[in-house]
Amino acid sequence: MIIEGKSYRSVWFTDGVINVIDQTVLPEKFRIRTLQSTNDVIDAINTMVVRGAPAIGALGAYGLAQGIQQLDVSDRQQIQDLAQILLNTRPTAHDLAHGIEYVLSRVAVENAPENIKAVALASAEEYAQQSIDACRRIGEHGSVLLHDGDTVLTHCNAGALATVDHGTALAVIRVAHHNKKNIHVFVDETRPRLQGAKLTAWELGQEGIPFTIIADNAAGYFMKTGAIDLVITGADRIARNGDVANKIGTYEKAVLANENGIPFYVAAPLSTIDFKCTTGDKIPIEERDSAEVLCIEGVQIAAPGSIARNPAFDVTPARYIKGIITEKGIYPPDNIHTLAV
Amino acid sequence: MIIEGKSYRSVWFTDGVINVIDQTVLPEKFRIRTLQSTNDVIDAINTMVVRGAPAIGALGAYGLAQGIQQLDVSDRQQIQDLAQILLNTRPTAHDLAHGIEYVLSRVAVENAPENIKAVALASAEEYAQQSIDACRRIGEHGSVLLHDGDTVLTHCNAGALATVDHGTALAVIRVAHHNKKNIHVFVDETRPRLQGAKLTAWELGQEGIPFTIIADNAAGYFMKTGAIDLVITGADRIARNGDVANKIGTYEKAVLANENGIPFYVAAPLSTIDFKCTTGDKIPIEERDSAEVLCIEGVQIAAPGSIARNPAFDVTPARYIKGIITEKGIYPPDNIHTLAV
Repeated sequence: MIIEGKSYRSVWFTDGVINVIDQTVLPEKFRIRTLQSTNDVIDAINTMVVRGAPAIGALGAYGLAQGIQQLDVSDRQQIQDLAQILLNTRPTAHDLAHGIEYVLSRVAVENAPENIKAVALASAEEYAQQSIDACRRIGEHGSVLLHDGDTVLTHCNAGALATVDHGTALAVIRVAHHNKKNIHVFVDETRPRLQGAKLTAWELGQEGIPFTIIADNAAGYFMKTGAIDLVITGADRIARNGDVANKIGTYEKAVLANENGIPFYVAAPLSTIDFKCTTGDKIPIEERDSAEVLCIEGVQIAAPGSIARNPAFDVTPARYIKGIITEKGIYPPDNIHTLAV
Repeated sequence: MIIEGKSYRSVWFTDGVINVIDQTVLPEKFRIRTLQSTNDVIDAINTMVVRGAPAIGALGAYGLAQGIQQLDVSDRQQIQDLAQILLNTRPTAHDLAHGIEYVLSRVAVENAPENIKAVALASAEEYAQQSIDACRRIGEHGSVLLHDGDTVLTHCNAGALATVDHGTALAVIRVAHHNKKNIHVFVDETRPRLQGAKLTAWELGQEGIPFTIIADNAAGYFMKTGAIDLVITGADRIARNGDVANKIGTYEKAVLANENGIPFYVAAPLSTIDFKCTTGDKIPIEERDSAEVLCIEGVQIAAPGSIARNPAFDVTPARYIKGIITEKGIYPPDNIHTLAV
C-alpha cells in the first residue's frame, strides 16, 4: 500500500524483528512497531495492533518462525506448544491457524534439526508472499464486478492493513480505481472499534479514492434510497457451506442488501476458508471486553454500572451472499467446497 | 419519571419559564435548564437539549405560549410568524407541528384579545397533560405484549425523556416491570448521538430495570441467536399508511426482526401520526451535521478531510411492523388511518 507516497506492507520481517503498522493509533499517528519476542506478538494480536484475518495469519507465521529461533529445535514438542500459544490469541479468524500450520508443516518435514530455524523463517516469508499474491488476484478477479460510476458499501476494514498488502474488499476497489473506473465508497464506521472510520477511510484517503463515512445505522437508509450498487466485505472465517463469519454487523448489512436487491459479495483468500468447518454455526465467536462498547476515546459514554455485551463477529448465512471473491475467481458460496485441496 | 427518588417531567412550565432536563449532558450530569425566551426554545430544540417527538411537541406548545406573552396579540400575524419559526427548527417529528397547532387552534377561536395570553398558556399546559396521559395509556395497552422473562430490544431513546413523561416504548416496558414481569432490555447504543447508551440506559438504571447495551451492529447477531423476543421503538412521524419515520437505524432493526420472525412494534401517541401524509416516502428526513459522525466526545475519529453523511431518521415501511401501540390501543399499521378524527 502507498502511505504518504511510500510503499508499505502491514507486516514484514527484517533482521530477526517483525515490523508492523500499529493499527491502534491510526489515523492520528502512523507508527511502525517492532515485535522482538513471542510475548510481543501475542500482545500485538490481543490488543489489535495487528488485526484482520489475513494480516494475523501472516503475523502468526512470522511469530512462530521468530519464536522457533529461540527454541531447542531438537525438542519438537516445544514447537507445537509455541504454535498452540499463538493459536489461542484469537478464536474466530481462520487465517491465524492457516499461517501457523503452514510453517509447522514445513518444519515437520525437515529432518535435519540444523535446518529447522532457516526453514521456519523461509516458510513464513513464503506464506506472507503468497498472501500478498492472493490479495492481488482477489482484486483483479473482483474488479470486473465494479462498473464506472458505482457506489460500493464496505464494512469494517478489509484493506491492506487487514492483510499483508492490497486488502480483500479494498483490493477489489483499488484495482477498479486504478483501472480508471469512477468508484465511490460508503464506509460503515463499524462500532465498537470504528475500523471503518479510522482505518478504511484513512487507507482510501491515502490512495485518493473518494469515500463517505456513515454511522452503521445509516447503511439501510442508503441501500433503501438507492445510493448503494454493491456491498463488499472481507471475512474472518468461511465455513465449507459458504456461511461467513466477519466483523459484527456484517450479517445486518447482508440481510439489508438482500432485502433491497443489492448484490452482497465477500472477498477473502482461500486461507480464510475452513474446509473442516461444515457450517457457520460451528464457528467460534469471540466476545471482547465490554469496555469497547461502554467507552469511546477513553470516555465512558453510559451511566456508571451499565453492562454491555460485545460479540466481535457474526455469521452471515450463505443464502445472503451472491459470491465469494477468491484468488481463484468468484464462486457462489455453495460452490466453495470445490476449492478444497 | 423517577430520578434519584424524585418525580420529574422532561418539560414543565413555572412562573413564565420553561424548565427542561438537559439531554445533552446526561448521563454524566443531571441538569435542569430554564428557557426564558423563544430564542432559548429554538436553541434547545436545535441542539437537542430536548429531543424525542412528543417532548419537542410539548416544548413547541410551551414555546409558542411563552412567546405569545411577549407579543402584541391584537396582531394575529405575529402569532402565526412565531409558530412558523418554532415549526422550522426540526422537520421530521410530527408532534412538533401537532403541539404548535394545538395552541394556535385554541388561540384562533378566542375572540377577546385580552384572553389570548392566558388561553395560550392554558392550552399548552393542557397539551402537555394530554401527552402524559397518552403515554401512560400506551404503556398500559402495550404491556400485554410483554411476558414474564421476555427480552426486548429497543433503539434510541423512546423514554420519559423523549416525551413529557412515561415514554412510549419505555412506557410499555415500565408498566410490565411495575406489574412484576421479569423483563430484560437490550439497548442499541444508537450512533451517532448514542441516545441508547446515554439516555435509555440511564432511565432504565434509575428505575432498576435490567438492561444490556450493545453496539448497533450487534442487534442482528442477538436476534439471530435467539436472545430477543420482541422489538419496540418509538416514532417521529407516522404516515397514514402506517410507514414510520424514526431514528436512523430503526429500518435496519425492523428488517432484521422480520427476517428472524421477531415481532416489531412501534409505540407512539396519535400526535405522531400525520394523517395528511399518505406514505413514508413523503416524510422529510433531516440531515444533521456530519460532525456528529466524525467526532465522538469531542475527538475526531476519522482522518482529517474525511466526509460523512448523517441522516437523522429513516422510514420503516408498514409491512415490517406488527403493530402500532397508541393510547387508543394496538393497531396493525394499515389500520391506523381509522384513528383520524
